[in-house]
Amino acid sequence: CKAHKVAVLPGDGIGPEIMDAALKVLTAAGRKEGETFEFKHALIGGAAIDATGNPLPEETLDICKASDSVLLAAIGGYKWDTLPAAQRPERGLLGLRAGLNAFANLRPAIVPRQLADSSPLKKEIVEGVDILIVRELVGGIYFGQPRGFGTNEKGDRIGFNTDVYSEPEVERIARVAFEAAQKRQKRLCSVEKSNVLEVSQLWKEVVIRVAKDYPDVELSHMYIDNAAMQLLRNPKYFDVVVTGNIFGDILSDEASMLAGSLGMLPSASISGSGPGIFEPVHGSAPDIAGQDLANPMAMVMSAAMMCRYDLKIPKVADRLEAAVDQALDQGLRTKDLWKEGTTLVKCSELGNKLVELV
Amino acid sequence: CKAHKVAVLPGDGIGPEIMDAALKVLTAAGRKEGETFEFKHALIGGAAIDATGNPLPEETLDICKASDSVLLAAIGGYKWDTLPAAQRPERGLLGLRAGLNAFANLRPAIVPRQLADSSPLKKEIVEGVDILIVRELVGGIYFGQPRGFGTNEKGDRIGFNTDVYSEPEVERIARVAFEAAQKRQKRLCSVEKSNVLEVSQLWKEVVIRVAKDYPDVELSHMYIDNAAMQLLRNPKYFDVVVTGNIFGDILSDEASMLAGSLGMLPSASISGSGPGIFEPVHGSAPDIAGQDLANPMAMVMSAAMMCRYDLKIPKVADRLEAAVDQALDQGLRTKDLWKEGTTLVKCSELGNKLVELV
Ligand SMILES: CC(C)[C@H](C(=O)O)[C@@H](O)C(=O)O
Ligand SMILES: CC(C)[C@H](C(=O)O)[C@@H](O)C(=O)O
Repeated sequence: CKAHKVAVLPGDGIGPEIMDAALKVLTAAGRKEGETFEFKHALIGGAAIDATGNPLPEETLDICKASDSVLLAAIGGYKWDTLPAAQRPERGLLGLRAGLNAFANLRPAIVPRQLADSSPLKKEIVEGVDILIVRELVGGIYFGQPRGFGTNEKGDRIGFNTDVYSEPEVERIARVAFEAAQKRQKRLCSVEKSNVLEVSQLWKEVVIRVAKDYPDVELSHMYIDNAAMQLLRNPKYFDVVVTGNIFGDILSDEASMLAGSLGMLPSASISGSGPGIFEPVHGSAPDIAGQDLANPMAMVMSAAMMCRYDLKIPKVADRLEAAVDQALDQGLRTKDLWKEGTTLVKCSELGNKLVELV
Repeated sequence: CKAHKVAVLPGDGIGPEIMDAALKVLTAAGRKEGETFEFKHALIGGAAIDATGNPLPEETLDICKASDSVLLAAIGGYKWDTLPAAQRPERGLLGLRAGLNAFANLRPAIVPRQLADSSPLKKEIVEGVDILIVRELVGGIYFGQPRGFGTNEKGDRIGFNTDVYSEPEVERIARVAFEAAQKRQKRLCSVEKSNVLEVSQLWKEVVIRVAKDYPDVELSHMYIDNAAMQLLRNPKYFDVVVTGNIFGDILSDEASMLAGSLGMLPSASISGSGPGIFEPVHGSAPDIAGQDLANPMAMVMSAAMMCRYDLKIPKVADRLEAAVDQALDQGLRTKDLWKEGTTLVKCSELGNKLVELV
């Protein structure tokens, strides 16, 4: 059988370390199921800026487009923080999302039972939480035109952005969310701010219309401010959440705290047609880069999502997830999660251990 | 000495009950300090829609403008949820904020020591938290033009809003925040999304410029997604937070959960020149309206903020706050906060008790 073509973008900071570990684990898990991978490395973010002056070189986008799937580790760092916004590492990420039309960002917020204690929230609140946030990723205020700087009637300098959604944009993300809900608890909560914003009114209207095609899914609506609250008050209320780009950015990071650590959380950004992007939710952590201290689990879990959603090799995904689960059971913890009574391991050690476990 | 003119807007749901209790407590506290009030009642929100068809009748705005200060309880309810957005109770609130130019919304997130247990967060995380969120309230995406519905190049229907800030708008809210920080722990965190949005880049630039006038305040910057996370991970990091309208809406509601219940949290919306608006953070809770179950403490605390910020009678504010503190010490709890070992009281009972305590 043919090798799965995977574009590999290690990026910055701890990116290369966790990617290294994850590729080993992925290769080992594939071998067990008779699946092979062809990894093509490419530059993105700060690493790409340093080498080419561009956070998303054309070559990188071409490699990604020619692959079955894209694995991305992390981008950014202090080093590039003083560059003008338009030239910063983040632009590479936004360009990649847009370039691949990866419109559906799936962010599971799951609290692994072994880690229910690490959350800043009380154990009884977070235990058993299993939320899937479906965030629209290539529209809304992130990409809306017009945007920029100008002058108002009074002659004052202004900065402005446009938050905009079209009917088809809302419809396609809503369908992804309804379909995900059908495979889960069949509850979907649409989050917006329709009591104030027209863009949210259109959002809500389209979601309600699309809901007719999914009569088995129970739909609810919540304002973003209330959602930010309910996520803490009663996170078990949520099954699937669907929301726009900026609200999804905020809500999914907030939700990640239910799990206590970003070190565990993967994400998938899928386009439905071409390759998707699979990346951990956490950042590049420049403060611990190069010290073999990072937690590779979110990267491994991202590879699992890739196997499930893009490459359609769910058995490999199962192996990856089971290995992570077992490592947690065995008490193996990188520095971010270490506690009295658990075993501190380095990033590379944990990678090797996961290779044994898959 | 002359009576303080206060416009009283009970609004909807539990609004009239908590207002009733709060006015009694305020009057009693004033009496002790030789201060008197002249209350002028007016309609807003659903109550105003029912009576006049308009969520903010002109008469109401006139009464507010002619007062020293505005006390608002809560607006909205299921009953008006099906009205078109432009005619809903919330419009009354937005119109009032804009009409009074109440640009600075101050939302304290304080965890009363008696209630550190009620938070969904762990006690050691929230105990001692004392954050002041300064939210810009009459600009940004809530009011930005252009906004509405239309069609894009592809002929698809769109909904859109403009997030916009001008230099003077950012400057005036930044000054309020820096000045507040000077009176507190002297730490200010400006929250935006400048890695993506131009409106945030202008925001950040202006805040940095204004900071030069407040060299004693330590300024930091945080992206909104990270702030939503850090608020849970390490809330004690924050002293004063300054942010735009929509981010402030989300962050202040999230922060309110640190305290466990919205029933305790007041807010002040000040203009610097005319009367400010003082209102609890919680909503109108139509499900428990008319049953004497509501918690009047946030309303009383809002009256305290009014005395401090607008009426400049800090001794009355002190009395109100001390009375709430004592009632908590005595274990008096309305239904939202009741727990084994505390005493369940009705809204009106708690009001009477607070009258005794001021
Ligand atoms: C790095 C940044 C541009 C990005 C975003 O805001 O989308 C990140 O926060 C994320 O959520 O993936
Ligand atoms: C009711 C609504 C329009 C309002 C807002 O979004 O500002 C409320 O959520 C608030 O925070 O006071």
